[in-house]
Amino acid sequence: MGAGQIGGSVALAARAAGAVTDVVAWSRTREKLERAVALGIIDRAAPSAAEAARGAALIVLAAPVRSLGPLAAEIAPALAPGALVIDVGSVKAAAIAAVEPKLPPGAFVACHPVAGTERVGPDAASPLLFEGKKCVVCPTAHSSEGAVATIERLWAAMGAEPVRMDAQLHDRVLGAGSHLPHVAAYTLAAALGGLPGDVVEAMRRLPTTSLRDTTRVAASSPAMWRDIFVDNRDQVLPLIEALAEQVAALRAAVSASDGPRIEELLERGRAGRERLVPG
Amino acid sequence: MGAGQIGGSVALAARAAGAVTDVVAWSRTREKLERAVALGIIDRAAPSAAEAARGAALIVLAAPVRSLGPLAAEIAPALAPGALVIDVGSVKAAAIAAVEPKLPPGAFVACHPVAGTERVGPDAASPLLFEGKKCVVCPTAHSSEGAVATIERLWAAMGAEPVRMDAQLHDRVLGAGSHLPHVAAYTLAAALGGLPGDVVEAMRRLPTTSLRDTTRVAASSPAMWRDIFVDNRDQVLPLIEALAEQVAALRAAVSASDGPRIEELLERGRAGRERLVPG
Repeated sequence: MGAGQIGGSVALAARAAGAVTDVVAWSRTREKLERAVALGIIDRAAPSAAEAARGAALIVLAAPVRSLGPLAAEIAPALAPGALVIDVGSVKAAAIAAVEPKLPPGAFVACHPVAGTERVGPDAASPLLFEGKKCVVCPTAHSSEGAVATIERLWAAMGAEPVRMDAQLHDRVLGAGSHLPHVAAYTLAAALGGLPGDVVEAMRRLPTTSLRDTTRVAASSPAMWRDIFVDNRDQVLPLIEALAEQVAALRAAVSASDGPRIEELLERGRAGRERLVPG
Repeated sequence: MGAGQIGGSVALAARAAGAVTDVVAWSRTREKLERAVALGIIDRAAPSAAEAARGAALIVLAAPVRSLGPLAAEIAPALAPGALVIDVGSVKAAAIAAVEPKLPPGAFVACHPVAGTERVGPDAASPLLFEGKKCVVCPTAHSSEGAVATIERLWAAMGAEPVRMDAQLHDRVLGAGSHLPHVAAYTLAAALGGLPGDVVEAMRRLPTTSLRDTTRVAASSPAMWRDIFVDNRDQVLPLIEALAEQVAALRAAVSASDGPRIEELLERGRAGRERLVPG
């Protein structure tokens, strides 16, 4: 369900691993589905989510969290006995709450491959997207150990390293390690995007690696990130507040030309970077 | 004057280009100077700035802006006739104001090679640092056209593409394209650096390219960036304020779970990124 970068990459990687034979997809966006067929990513498009799920051994929900609940409800009656269902989204507690109650006990395994780029759509799909990446798998009290182990083997076959983690911890860790960096990149690019044309023209004549790298993920899909911020609001909001505090502190220090205080704040950042991304 | 990454790289690149024969350096930090000799970056260390400058055809001031004025005053009496003096710092209006009045008319040419990494010191110097990079050269009303042209040829010989630009515009453009990205990276890393140990440990198990890239330049020298923020305060402060406004707006929208407003703010960032770093 879904034929974007992640769903398409699962199809390609699973096929490359010999883990699947017949890949059927459904997407709300008809053009994506047709493009995925044209690119040979999927074997065929189904007319509905239920039809795509019917008889399948594995169903991949590669869709925004808010569509997961309705999708799970729609496919539930069509599920073959023993069928496994996974999602691939960036927020896990909300996904589990939306999907698990709608499906047979133990059928759902919440997954988050920590991969993907700022590119979107089936054209950005690659069989190598998960190669060398981690994939978080979040078992719950209702999980089947057999199902979890099967899904971990699937991710390993697709080149990823499965990492088991509690969904709440996952959401906190990704809020810090992925969602807040996106906040920083988007707000930086927004703050600079309104500069006058002559300044922007001169900036393009003097490209910097700092601007390129620091804003890179601001090229990501605003709709996808809107959903992630809403779905992981409880973890992300305190982090945005911490970021706002650091920006306010540095603004005050620069405004006062307070060299020692500026250096203290920057040193806090340097030490933080060293702690988070050692070496 | 100065034997860090930039000063050392100028020595290596100029020598590789056959533009210099004898490289003499002075640095306030004795260890850097000894290390630069040991690495073969410079031919010898001088006991003082004036001694290093005596008889030289080209003097490179690779030192913080606030030491440029005193350095220029110290070397002025030792300058050979026709000697040229350049700086290589990130802020140009302040450098020109500090150096130009202390030197013979037309002797100084303000330069900013837009190169350098988050690494510091002579060990980070490379003869290829400027290869394919831009070097801004800022002529003033007091500049000698012959001196400016000579210095442009020097940068071209070291692999860089010289770009002439007014010092004020340079400072505004670099404030936006380099200084504010550093603000974003440092404040992001500072906001995350205080997280509890179990969260940081889990973050290290799930490294993300977004965290790595967005915080990369927070590994830079806090002392160097303290100086840049102070020296370019007038340009940087309004930009930090714009960043603070964007963070505050996104915080309010996430707090209210206001999906359309979140998407609008993120779209502003996406469009800004596309405008600043096209394609």
